Amino acid sequence: MAKLTEADKRVIERLVSEARTVIKHVNDGKNPDVKIPLRALSNVSFDEKEGVIRMGTKKQERTFFNVGQAKKFLQTFVMASSIKELVESGKTTSIRDIFYMCKRPIAGTSQNIFDEQDESDPIVEDLEVMIDSLREELHLFASSKGAMVGALTIVDGGDTIDLRKMGTGGWAVPSIVEKSTIEFKKCDAKYVLLVEKDAVWRRLNEDKFWEKNSCLIIHGGGVPPRGVRRLLRRMNAELRLPVYVLVDNDPWGLYIYSVVKQGSINLAFESMRMAVPSAKFIGLSSFDAEKYKLPKEVELRLNAEDLRRCKEILSYPWFQKKKWQDEIKHMMAKNRKLELEAISRKGISFISEKYIPDKINNKDWME
Amino acid sequence: MAKLTEADKRVIERLVSEARTVIKHVNDGKNPDVKIPLRALSNVSFDEKEGVIRMGTKKQERTFFNVGQAKKFLQTFVMASSIKELVESGKTTSIRDIFYMCKRPIAGTSQNIFDEQDESDPIVEDLEVMIDSLREELHLFASSKGAMVGALTIVDGGDTIDLRKMGTGGWAVPSIVEKSTIEFKKCDAKYVLLVEKDAVWRRLNEDKFWEKNSCLIIHGGGVPPRGVRRLLRRMNAELRLPVYVLVDNDPWGLYIYSVVKQGSINLAFESMRMAVPSAKFIGLSSFDAEKYKLPKEVELRLNAEDLRRCKEILSYPWFQKKKWQDEIKHMMAKNRKLELEAISRKGISFISEKYIPDKINNKDWME
Repeated sequence: MAKLTEADKRVIERLVSEARTVIKHVNDGKNPDVKIPLRALSNVSFDEKEGVIRMGTKKQERTFFNVGQAKKFLQTFVMASSIKELVESGKTTSIRDIFYMCKRPIAGTSQNIFDEQDESDPIVEDLEVMIDSLREELHLFASSKGAMVGALTIVDGGDTIDLRKMGTGGWAVPSIVEKSTIEFKKCDAKYVLLVEKDAVWRRLNEDKFWEKNSCLIIHGGGVPPRGVRRLLRRMNAELRLPVYVLVDNDPWGLYIYSVVKQGSINLAFESMRMAVPSAKFIGLSSFDAEKYKLPKEVELRLNAEDLRRCKEILSYPWFQKKKWQDEIKHMMAKNRKLELEAISRKGISFISEKYIPDKINNKDWME
Repeated sequence: MAKLTEADKRVIERLVSEARTVIKHVNDGKNPDVKIPLRALSNVSFDEKEGVIRMGTKKQERTFFNVGQAKKFLQTFVMASSIKELVESGKTTSIRDIFYMCKRPIAGTSQNIFDEQDESDPIVEDLEVMIDSLREELHLFASSKGAMVGALTIVDGGDTIDLRKMGTGGWAVPSIVEKSTIEFKKCDAKYVLLVEKDAVWRRLNEDKFWEKNSCLIIHGGGVPPRGVRRLLRRMNAELRLPVYVLVDNDPWGLYIYSVVKQGSINLAFESMRMAVPSAKFIGLSSFDAEKYKLPKEVELRLNAEDLRRCKEILSYPWFQKKKWQDEIKHMMAKNRKLELEAISRKGISFISEKYIPDKINNKDWME
């Protein structure tokens, strides 16, 4: 058995405790059950005070002597047992891998415990909420995307990495960025800038934006994956670094900002560990085309899907401030969206030399 | 103007030379034209000797006094002019960016030079073949994906990076990996292993596979992007490292292998600079499920699209060797595919401790 961290021990303890309860139920002649916090829209609300999407207190009961629940009950404990072994091994793996590890026939039958990954993924999420641990603490990783450079030294898996000396490529942000893997060392950064697109990140890196502005620049190749979000959260909480978000001016960009800031509805139970409620939106704003006198041909028309999403976003509780309503309504009224690349019409380095510094120095942001 | 490399000077010279020819035509009262190598299936063939997909010698003529060609003629020179400026600036940018830079009205009209990026991308490719330069030499980058670690030190944009000390994340492979940006230094690697999936790459990195086996491990998040392919080519050519490819056992995996090895049909003109004709396929083979006694429930049924692709691949000239025909026909006869993750059923580190070392040590590969 590998050397276990405190977090590992906590996970194992909780899994074992659930199993013990079930065994006790059996010995007492009761119908074994587990109680799992409900992951559904009906159990999700926006916590205005904390600024995050939060899971409520409703729970569902999963019992063994119930035709509709017996298989899920079995799946829950097969998965729990595999995860316990995984944590004890000191290794990490993907949710695809763990699916294959658990995909085997139920003893004495020709039926599999799991047939498809869309059965095993929700069980992983059940376990996460059941024992109040992030997937990463269960040693499971998601796909990784994104890169970071800037004025920070980290230790990653025992290797000291100076993010000031990472060339044009940068450090590839892994999926698991918990303290047991990633430690923060010398930090000269004053803030973290998340950009939606790797092309813009590359522009900023080539211009040594992070050096001139003492910051960190990170991208997640579109909607940031879990590793990038968790890292933003940690840098914000532990290094006290403000987080600025730079996205396209379209509903998708606003969605990315909102996932970073208050978490996602689907994974509300993780918001407290993944979201950055103080994250600031520095653009693109739907008023930027006028403000920066961009020629009209670089703006794009909203399509039907964009308009539908705009209407949806208008009603989100976290976009109810007047500034946000004005912002979104202006986009709809103009019927135009704007990509980050469009700013290049003002000069290839306009974004790094003028646009972003102005936004940050003039506090020209929205929250 | 930035300090220009030899490659930069060559690009500028060729662009200017094309423009001079047009001006001469005008002065001579001729119809200005440019000759562009034809990028079409009819001008592509498989070069058995070199083992790459190669572009033929057919050219298309683009003339100015031709209603059907005048706009494209204009677009070609507007783009050439923007690229010349870009190269002279010493900066790099994305093809999306350069589209926006060129998206402006034709003087005195309300028509734009380019309306959509699907007009400007082919013009970039025209210029690439016209002056026989890779897109990266025109200072244009594609989206970047993928990561690398292993027994090699590189210099990236002036920073020395020891790929032996890159933690769990690794070095994010940039899109432009030409000599002007990336130099190779101390190399202790005996080969490069390209894996299709980042989850498997992570498994190998966690197991320090590259350290135990003195190699480099790299992934490209699926079909490897240009940066990863070009880097493989350079490591193969300059460091004399064999390249092994590890993909899912399905038609998509075979496609990935084939793109790495002989290039793609769409971008045949780049094969000589991007392909690795000596690349070896080490799996997954359709015979592996039997060879490694994998339980039948981890195999997946081929779908209609898989079967269609299998038939297509069977007819490719580079898959005509008996071993390949047997391989593909066996997949079709079994009607089963197999993902890399399925090997985890033999143990979480079976792939790094047994499967890959066996394949390489026993020369159990296909070419």
